[in-house]
Amino acid sequence: MPFPSRFKHCPHCGAAVDYRVPPDDNRERAVCTACDSIHYQNPLNVVGTLPVWEADGRVLLCRRAIEPRLGLWTLPAGFMELGETTAEGALRETHEEAGAQIELLGLYSLLNVVKVGQVHFFYRARLLSPRFEPGPESLEAQLFAEHEIPWDEIAFQTTRETLTRYFDDRRHGRAFALFSADLH
Amino acid sequence: MPFPSRFKHCPHCGAAVDYRVPPDDNRERAVCTACDSIHYQNPLNVVGTLPVWEADGRVLLCRRAIEPRLGLWTLPAGFMELGETTAEGALRETHEEAGAQIELLGLYSLLNVVKVGQVHFFYRARLLSPRFEPGPESLEAQLFAEHEIPWDEIAFQTTRETLTRYFDDRRHGRAFALFSADLH
Repeated sequence: MPFPSRFKHCPHCGAAVDYRVPPDDNRERAVCTACDSIHYQNPLNVVGTLPVWEADGRVLLCRRAIEPRLGLWTLPAGFMELGETTAEGALRETHEEAGAQIELLGLYSLLNVVKVGQVHFFYRARLLSPRFEPGPESLEAQLFAEHEIPWDEIAFQTTRETLTRYFDDRRHGRAFALFSADLH
Repeated sequence: MPFPSRFKHCPHCGAAVDYRVPPDDNRERAVCTACDSIHYQNPLNVVGTLPVWEADGRVLLCRRAIEPRLGLWTLPAGFMELGETTAEGALRETHEEAGAQIELLGLYSLLNVVKVGQVHFFYRARLLSPRFEPGPESLEAQLFAEHEIPWDEIAFQTTRETLTRYFDDRRHGRAFALFSADLH
């Protein structure tokens, strides 16, 4: 998943764009050669959860039914949409990908993934039921104890970092303080 | 500052787009009527700092030289760019808008501004010098004690919320824990 592809045409009028530095700016932008409008491309937010079934401490992972990383395991997460908060997006993605009923706890990890222009947010969550209904983007949704986590089949580094930190915090009886990291 | 304006043309090929729900999706997207590419529009991140001159506890505000809210005061902040982390963006914006030399401390506020499709991040920062050099987007940059803050001339609600929480934490000797809020 590289940076979003560069604009070739103006989304307002359809004419070709040119890449140049607009007045009072300091980086190249897509500037329309016909209507002069300027089009910015910026990082995207990915929002998700780390859902835990508290009766036995197992965590929920989903196996991806879509590219990229089809067949690998991930925490439920996806792109934040207009009209929702980061927490609402995390809840929505957990419903869509796992069909899981959860209660959100605090924001737990905030991970910059610079090379793909993304910021990932994971909230801790309490599962209200151990029954799931995987959506079209998931092959299956399953609970894993720490020793069962398929570490060799994890789809994304942000899932790996969040799970690793979580089990470490839990093992040491630490509070689940916000964990920030930059993945270059 | 409303939501980003909707695409009328395809940024890949310039043909008209149509708004419809693509297969396996659940909301309307701009879909190209010629090349079938799908174009997503998502929330943007605004990154900034709350810079403090520790010798006397004053905080740095910038007076805006540009719309929206020209002439009003704001914490230094702006849109996160591709190729940088949230912290790097906050540092860059503080340099660009105030010419301030700072050292970043922790992430302090995370504010969802749903009605404009933005997420605002403010980091606490230590000013390394009380001298500033406002950039083209600022009329001036100035230090304010708590009782000097121009509360009636604050540009954005996220600046107001962040300052209010900061002075409250400081007055009560509280640790500066991450503060999340949703502004609808």
